Amino acid sequence: MDISPRHLRADYRRGALKPSDVAAHVLSRLADADQSGVWISTAEPESVMATARALDARLGEMDRLPLYGLVFSVKDCIDVAGEQTTSACPEFAYVAKETSPVVADAIAAGAIYVGKTNMDQFATGLVGVRSPYGVARNPHNPDYIPGGSSSGAAVSVATGTSSFAFGTDTGGSGRVPASYCGVTGFKPSPGAFSQRGMVYACRSFDTISLYTREPGDGYNVYRVLARRDPADSFSPAEFPGWAEQTPPSRPFKLATPRSDQLKFFGNAETEKLFGDALRRLRRLDLPVDPVDFSPFSSINDLMFFGPFLAERDVSVGAFLDAHPDAGVKIVRDLVLGSRKFSAADAYRAFYAVKDAQRGLRDFWTVHDALVVPTVGTVLSIADVTRDPLTANFNNGYYTNYANPLGLAAIAVPNGITAADVPYGVTFLAPAGRERLLADLACTFMEAAPEP
Amino acid sequence: MDISPRHLRADYRRGALKPSDVAAHVLSRLADADQSGVWISTAEPESVMATARALDARLGEMDRLPLYGLVFSVKDCIDVAGEQTTSACPEFAYVAKETSPVVADAIAAGAIYVGKTNMDQFATGLVGVRSPYGVARNPHNPDYIPGGSSSGAAVSVATGTSSFAFGTDTGGSGRVPASYCGVTGFKPSPGAFSQRGMVYACRSFDTISLYTREPGDGYNVYRVLARRDPADSFSPAEFPGWAEQTPPSRPFKLATPRSDQLKFFGNAETEKLFGDALRRLRRLDLPVDPVDFSPFSSINDLMFFGPFLAERDVSVGAFLDAHPDAGVKIVRDLVLGSRKFSAADAYRAFYAVKDAQRGLRDFWTVHDALVVPTVGTVLSIADVTRDPLTANFNNGYYTNYANPLGLAAIAVPNGITAADVPYGVTFLAPAGRERLLADLACTFMEAAPEP
Repeated sequence: MDISPRHLRADYRRGALKPSDVAAHVLSRLADADQSGVWISTAEPESVMATARALDARLGEMDRLPLYGLVFSVKDCIDVAGEQTTSACPEFAYVAKETSPVVADAIAAGAIYVGKTNMDQFATGLVGVRSPYGVARNPHNPDYIPGGSSSGAAVSVATGTSSFAFGTDTGGSGRVPASYCGVTGFKPSPGAFSQRGMVYACRSFDTISLYTREPGDGYNVYRVLARRDPADSFSPAEFPGWAEQTPPSRPFKLATPRSDQLKFFGNAETEKLFGDALRRLRRLDLPVDPVDFSPFSSINDLMFFGPFLAERDVSVGAFLDAHPDAGVKIVRDLVLGSRKFSAADAYRAFYAVKDAQRGLRDFWTVHDALVVPTVGTVLSIADVTRDPLTANFNNGYYTNYANPLGLAAIAVPNGITAADVPYGVTFLAPAGRERLLADLACTFMEAAPEP
Repeated sequence: MDISPRHLRADYRRGALKPSDVAAHVLSRLADADQSGVWISTAEPESVMATARALDARLGEMDRLPLYGLVFSVKDCIDVAGEQTTSACPEFAYVAKETSPVVADAIAAGAIYVGKTNMDQFATGLVGVRSPYGVARNPHNPDYIPGGSSSGAAVSVATGTSSFAFGTDTGGSGRVPASYCGVTGFKPSPGAFSQRGMVYACRSFDTISLYTREPGDGYNVYRVLARRDPADSFSPAEFPGWAEQTPPSRPFKLATPRSDQLKFFGNAETEKLFGDALRRLRRLDLPVDPVDFSPFSSINDLMFFGPFLAERDVSVGAFLDAHPDAGVKIVRDLVLGSRKFSAADAYRAFYAVKDAQRGLRDFWTVHDALVVPTVGTVLSIADVTRDPLTANFNNGYYTNYANPLGLAAIAVPNGITAADVPYGVTFLAPAGRERLLADLACTFMEAAPEP
């Protein structure tokens, strides 16, 4: 059963399906083999069915319920009232009192919550193997990682147990799993979605994100949920209307890193696949200019090797101190290791980000969007076990800088490796160009891949 | 000779004075007793006179030279090309290659540079006694401090050797000396003036500021100089037109700290003077509501006792390390003492500021401006010698929070103590209400004090 938003809405509208059919189908799937490692907890089936049946009776209201009958999962660092939030650390678990405003808005718009998904613990990782709840099985090749940190979210969409999924994105967690699982990751610019009701990684620029199969669906869900939250200190004082955008006018001017700055970490196959993507764009009359990538990549070191890590300490350091046996070792070491960074280091990082933003102002007046590989290479579980820090860092080369620089991004499938692992591309642009990013991604996806 | 902007322009226009008359007058005054401790360096007299005579010949261009013939001083942490910048530390001195854009704009608008003024070293202090160049003599009572850190700037205006003076303001340096010297301190909101070409205290929210005698003159000079600087990473991406504002409409809704949150540090005289200010406002049909001051004052501890200090370390810490004998001890200890703060502390401070800003959004929709004493009490040099840290902290109770919270402020005279020391009030409001602040300050100043 194709439960992606566009298909479901069409099926509901013509009476081919009811929300309770879809809910029953998804519930019946949750113990299947392809769901291995995907869920940390699932909603009470009776409650899911009751919600679905109530929606069955509201078919006439579909037009004012833009997410009517869509089944969704929630990454387990985001709160759903009455459910446990673990952030993939059982000792950290608490029962949430309130539902995150973004999730609450989805429910109010007619969507059906089914469960909480697995993740790299405390959203600290881009690999999807840093969880005591196991590894969400890569739906294409189980020897490969699903990508992280929003691993379960991406797999739940890829395997058809979620119409859309809530992930989060700090340094790439809303995009890397999209590449590994062959789905769309839509990462709003920081501030477009409320940050309340989540376990922060880096509160300065964390954003809740969306997984869907199709980029158009990602953008449509985004439009429903993007709004100002007056109770969120990081929500903009005035919402600049990022959700309602007119179609951008052609021709688009795209940029991509200069070839000497592209990194595939020795993988000729992914290098060729990205070349194919650029050729596909040219064929679509979307030429791509090679540009200097260093203003973007200069921010990367701050994310998993620099003072940005200390934001994770503010979020969960006191818990880790109080629970010396809790936490995946590599996550624990990264978070507590941030204590070597001084306040001066944090301010230097802040200035570096401001300087990079300024340095890119002219870039963004010339270019509509940046297109990059979502990840440089595809990593197996064995690769990550062998050298977990390098693997993680490499996975973030094209993703880490986006949130500090205030960019929105959409990650979509591009090709498949010989090992049957999907490999994606990402389009990025400043806040306010989400519609343009979605249009680009849809145009890219609708065209046939290179032969 | 009254060299304040309004008077000078009138005198120039009717031919009663020429810029060279004023320049000669000011140059003749620089060695007078009342200039003791005011100047760290002064411009070459020949150069000042040449500039002034060139302006004499351009009288017909007055209308397009809004600062025509005004003589100004520059706090010695701001660069003037070819002049030394010391930041009140002789070992730190360098000859500036470029003039700060704000100063360059003033010169291009017809103003005449005369010299660099004394200050608390590295702008680290609110007292004006932390300088190896001595204490800028308080023009009203030399036993009292001039206030800091922009001590020389305020004294140069108070003693008539500058039509306006450039100070800087991080935690109150652009306002505290206004109170002690009986002049106006106009502190733009961070971002209104370029930050380039200065020795930073806290680069995140430092702002160059203005001293004048009259508040109207401060606002008029501000309007000439406020603009976006594309080369400054902390300048807003789009300049929101802070400089051009329509007259605000009455009635104004003013707020002041609840009486239990007002602090006069045991000084009944200043307490009464501030009460007089509130009565004067009421008499002017400008009633003042007592409000909870804690959202503002909660930020104060971060400034001279918290991680904000580490921004000063980023600015001058490497110099202090390399020069173990340089620096006023209390300044050195404060800057290097900041190394006890971790990156996590800096992020906690950042969140606290964001939370306070959010917490105040409703406040600013209800209230037009906040009125506070500029300082709680007036301190003698002996007071500060006795307990320098407490004295400094007390001087910042009503000033520290303004820049982190993004506020503009105007500090104006209110009354005089029995010891003949001026005592001021400050009006504060968010960026975009500078005109309102100036109107309030002018209205306040034009009314007779309480009997």
